[in-house]
Amino acid sequence: MSANQFGSRFVITSFGESHGTALGVVIDGCPAGVRFDEALLKKELERRRPGHHGSGQIVSGRQETDAPEVLSGIFEGQTLGTPIAIIVRNQDARSQDYKDIKTSPRAGHADDMWKNKFGHSDHRGGGRSSGRETVSRVMAGSVAQMMMKHVSAPTKVIGYASQIGPFTLTQEEREQVTSKNIDSFQARFPSTRDHEVDALLKKAQEQGDSYGGVAEILIQNPPAYLGQPVFHKLKSDLAQAFLSVGATNGFELGLGFDAVDVKGTDFHQGSQAAYGGIRGGISTGESILLRVSFKPTSSILDVAKKGRHDPCIVTRAIPVLESMTWLVLADHYLWSKTDRI
Amino acid sequence: MSANQFGSRFVITSFGESHGTALGVVIDGCPAGVRFDEALLKKELERRRPGHHGSGQIVSGRQETDAPEVLSGIFEGQTLGTPIAIIVRNQDARSQDYKDIKTSPRAGHADDMWKNKFGHSDHRGGGRSSGRETVSRVMAGSVAQMMMKHVSAPTKVIGYASQIGPFTLTQEEREQVTSKNIDSFQARFPSTRDHEVDALLKKAQEQGDSYGGVAEILIQNPPAYLGQPVFHKLKSDLAQAFLSVGATNGFELGLGFDAVDVKGTDFHQGSQAAYGGIRGGISTGESILLRVSFKPTSSILDVAKKGRHDPCIVTRAIPVLESMTWLVLADHYLWSKTDRI
Amino acid sequence: MSANQFGSRFVITSFGESHGTALGVVIDGCPAGVRFDEALLKKELERRRPGHHGSGQIVSGRQETDAPEVLSGIFEGQTLGTPIAIIVRNQDARSQDYKDIKTSPRAGHADDMWKNKFGHSDHRGGGRSSGRETVSRVMAGSVAQMMMKHVSAPTKVIGYASQIGPFTLTQEEREQVTSKNIDSFQARFPSTRDHEVDALLKKAQEQGDSYGGVAEILIQNPPAYLGQPVFHKLKSDLAQAFLSVGATNGFELGLGFDAVDVKGTDFHQGSQAAYGGIRGGISTGESILLRVSFKPTSSILDVAKKGRHDPCIVTRAIPVLESMTWLVLADHYLWSKTDRI
Amino acid sequence: MSANQFGSRFVITSFGESHGTALGVVIDGCPAGVRFDEALLKKELERRRPGHHGSGQIVSGRQETDAPEVLSGIFEGQTLGTPIAIIVRNQDARSQDYKDIKTSPRAGHADDMWKNKFGHSDHRGGGRSSGRETVSRVMAGSVAQMMMKHVSAPTKVIGYASQIGPFTLTQEEREQVTSKNIDSFQARFPSTRDHEVDALLKKAQEQGDSYGGVAEILIQNPPAYLGQPVFHKLKSDLAQAFLSVGATNGFELGLGFDAVDVKGTDFHQGSQAAYGGIRGGISTGESILLRVSFKPTSSILDVAKKGRHDPCIVTRAIPVLESMTWLVLADHYLWSKTDRI
Repeated sequence: MSANQFGSRFVITSFGESHGTALGVVIDGCPAGVRFDEALLKKELERRRPGHHGSGQIVSGRQETDAPEVLSGIFEGQTLGTPIAIIVRNQDARSQDYKDIKTSPRAGHADDMWKNKFGHSDHRGGGRSSGRETVSRVMAGSVAQMMMKHVSAPTKVIGYASQIGPFTLTQEEREQVTSKNIDSFQARFPSTRDHEVDALLKKAQEQGDSYGGVAEILIQNPPAYLGQPVFHKLKSDLAQAFLSVGATNGFELGLGFDAVDVKGTDFHQGSQAAYGGIRGGISTGESILLRVSFKPTSSILDVAKKGRHDPCIVTRAIPVLESMTWLVLADHYLWSKTDRI
Repeated sequence: MSANQFGSRFVITSFGESHGTALGVVIDGCPAGVRFDEALLKKELERRRPGHHGSGQIVSGRQETDAPEVLSGIFEGQTLGTPIAIIVRNQDARSQDYKDIKTSPRAGHADDMWKNKFGHSDHRGGGRSSGRETVSRVMAGSVAQMMMKHVSAPTKVIGYASQIGPFTLTQEEREQVTSKNIDSFQARFPSTRDHEVDALLKKAQEQGDSYGGVAEILIQNPPAYLGQPVFHKLKSDLAQAFLSVGATNGFELGLGFDAVDVKGTDFHQGSQAAYGGIRGGISTGESILLRVSFKPTSSILDVAKKGRHDPCIVTRAIPVLESMTWLVLADHYLWSKTDRI
Repeated sequence: MSANQFGSRFVITSFGESHGTALGVVIDGCPAGVRFDEALLKKELERRRPGHHGSGQIVSGRQETDAPEVLSGIFEGQTLGTPIAIIVRNQDARSQDYKDIKTSPRAGHADDMWKNKFGHSDHRGGGRSSGRETVSRVMAGSVAQMMMKHVSAPTKVIGYASQIGPFTLTQEEREQVTSKNIDSFQARFPSTRDHEVDALLKKAQEQGDSYGGVAEILIQNPPAYLGQPVFHKLKSDLAQAFLSVGATNGFELGLGFDAVDVKGTDFHQGSQAAYGGIRGGISTGESILLRVSFKPTSSILDVAKKGRHDPCIVTRAIPVLESMTWLVLADHYLWSKTDRI
Repeated sequence: MSANQFGSRFVITSFGESHGTALGVVIDGCPAGVRFDEALLKKELERRRPGHHGSGQIVSGRQETDAPEVLSGIFEGQTLGTPIAIIVRNQDARSQDYKDIKTSPRAGHADDMWKNKFGHSDHRGGGRSSGRETVSRVMAGSVAQMMMKHVSAPTKVIGYASQIGPFTLTQEEREQVTSKNIDSFQARFPSTRDHEVDALLKKAQEQGDSYGGVAEILIQNPPAYLGQPVFHKLKSDLAQAFLSVGATNGFELGLGFDAVDVKGTDFHQGSQAAYGGIRGGISTGESILLRVSFKPTSSILDVAKKGRHDPCIVTRAIPVLESMTWLVLADHYLWSKTDRI
């Protein structure tokens, strides 16, 4: 297991610095015979891109197209069983914005940590600690999604913001979200209050402020019996996956912390919400609800960003969390192939 | 990476069923020259044991001594750099209690999941899905602790219950907890209200009910610069480690979900509580506060347990979470040895 | 991947020092539902034991019974899909023989290498560099064999000595060897000249001398399409497996070095001997012939052994090489389950 | 461990099909602070290229320049500790030559094996089973070499052909080979008889025939104490590395098979040739001599190649074997950093 590698069967290696030549990913372990859906790849990359859905004024404005180039592993529209390498070149690097930062690492950022840890670091735009690294995850996740569509067509992964700063989604609103309608909400907060949220974030951006938030990932119709006891329970691999995304600081399965003060006799009535669709670390086949918290964006402290910071990172993180979810599902699906002789 | 293996450098493999011959662990990757502290190993095993600290009436009453036997890897009081295998034999298995369960898997338990996943399972006392598996983790964690004491003597890991059912620790109480005093509280809830908590749990046990809870793990004086970007950030490996423990359903670093509705300009003032001692996935050297939520014990549904269930699992989970923390620290400490040339 | 771990899907971790408490192995990744054949386990351990087959005067005379104890992973005669731990306790350690060695490491042995590498080593009988470590491999290999019998009954692995010092097997003799008759030859050299070989070795033992040799492993009816390009070709994993056995210094597939001066047009006529049953790193389903060379035993230089050294290690190594072969087959069999979607 | 991944600490993932968009490699685990020597990278790629050294008529004539492009991991001339991705685009693919092959897989080639294993394969020029995949290995190996130069400047890896068909190097010739002079011999057979060898190969090429050969790799001044007992002995990882190269079918350390009929008392006199510089699987610091045999090129059977086949693959394989050697050394060097506390 190396530092930039994720997965045990469906193994990805991510590479690339924010202002380097390219970002990319190599997927080793994807079986042969999966139909390669380039449109899906492009759509997911587009969904990750700043300000792609709606006015684009809320999220930081790097205007790259992020055109993926498939270097290997695909032939005649199908996976070959060989490593799939996909890259995206960096075009609009604006590295002049980051000139001053070399000697003054950005407060709240990982820059100084990397500098001290490695002795040598790429200060330009956060180097590899930049959120731009998630391009690699989204590319890999889209291939995982292609594979899962093949073996478990009804499985869906839907992400949305359930909290942005002081605004919280109601249960009613939550129940109406679909993978189709979520991107019509600029901040991916699926509520009629979305314009209030947009206004809050716009103001925060202007004032150099930011908010935290909560993203929810709902897995509908997951395959049953995924998860490997004891250290690779489905929940532990999902937790690792989500907490590897920048600015995250919390994770919940099902009721999470809210289950603490429920009496056991009330809690254990078999409702899927309570169990969270995972028992003994293994998927039951019921829906799985996951929640991830994000702290307020630290880029407000970053003089270089000059009004281009994300006032709330949750919106952009959603396609990334969905990708990590597909990766965990694909990995565990392949793993389950050897559960029994 | 196999299912029962944890760690990348300090690699452990856990084995054993609850009512099988023995539980054990093999540690591969512990460097040579670590002084082996058998007393520490025994103390940590004792701390994990049901009802060891205080009256023992609150936690389920399996009365095994859990005497560890070191099979390999230690010579003349020091680690050899070879695999360290340690086992504990099962003595008081009471497998007669579990006879009826074969055809009726226990509700809320992992038993039926395992049965369906693997086609063949050990129904006796949960087999390998039993909490008894954590004996292996505590043994491995105590060796990790021995290694860390060697290289970073001031580092401390302190675990305690911060919430049990409706009872929540105050900030003042939290600040007075130490590794020395915590075990004097029967439920490891370090408060003058501890007797109320005890009474609540005793009543729950009698009535066949249970409560969830929250455990907090405080890492004092961790080595700085631990954590490997991007997929093995310190926080993501800790989240995986903690969520691999049974009944967990939530994880927080620092303020966690409570950071969501704090304004960024208020949040980012450098206070260590806010940052959680990890930035960009890498330890800063400041204290790290972690929180783990547990759902109410499902064993209340288990006819076989007949009043021997744990009314709240948090108390017993604390030495396990501490062990997982030491394992993550030891793994990342070794990993950091190759950060720079 | 840790140092004492082998395999990617059928993963084993070996542990134990020659004169420590026990030797053992944990197998993680064996699917559930494999019938556990304890008799096979015992038979294979017996075959590995010094001097088990015949007079026993040729090989060094440690007289332990090597009774295996299964600690986990088996229930009601079948594998559970959980880790299978098996140990053998050390009984007849004779550590008094090794007292003098502490300050004078044995020439030709690994003792001084380990001492310098790890700073601290177990000098008693070679510690973990002892050939006794192979007990773990044979136990794991027998479980791999059980699994392969389940999924590919016609597959056979037959090992024999094809050269011992100056004696070389003829092609005619080679063709008559079977898994049934090989152990009737004391040195596992299946020839009517076996008594000459025995005499040579007996004399060498008396005179404190030793010989090298060549072991051949014939895999009959292997499953086709095993092997993972590019770094885990079947041949590369077999080479690693065999060269991890002590005293080995050469490996050949099919004609090996003898293919070098054959003209290509003569060589490539599709004969299975030429191809060695592996093409492009992948098994064709035809027989695979492997050869492993061993240098003369270094224990002749070991004063402590006092006439108990093995005059030729090949005989005892054969069950070990067979075990490693089964492990590679089992690992690649499981791996192939995810070749295609 | 995934199929296209090599190494445990200095981990590489190779990707790319012969006639796909690009070949490449990602190196994860190279420490920060290694000076990046682009000239070395280019020189090693040039050395791997067909017909680069001399007239170029002996080896198959694909005329690509193989210009490497570094995508990540390097900044201001040094490694960052982040993944280093390097690619080479395929230019002169001549895929028209391979049109006919789709329905008739090439005899002796891996094509039909891959087709049957994966169900779907890239028939163009062998796809990923092509020797062109070794471009990735040479790129990774050159970075490993840069790292080793940094930590062990006197270490040298010298490869040469010691046998080509019927021609065998003398001991005297062997002793005069250096890394400087070897490439002046067209077939890398360092002998005054080199023109006879050239003539033999030219004739073989014209007549559609081929020869096997033996490559020797000499490691001078390796760091001492590299190698991890028991499954990752230096010799076993080298054997795996070399046998993962196409057309290889044999491996020897030191005297190899020739040690078999030497009496132990003669063999064990401490000469470095006999021991091969590795004892107990661990490097002693003395020179290590390795030999690898290659079967006669199978491309003679390949109608598509039409006189462009390699009459002997050894010459071109030498930079590849050297690269694999650097990779094993770099991996074990990093691994040894955690031998002791």
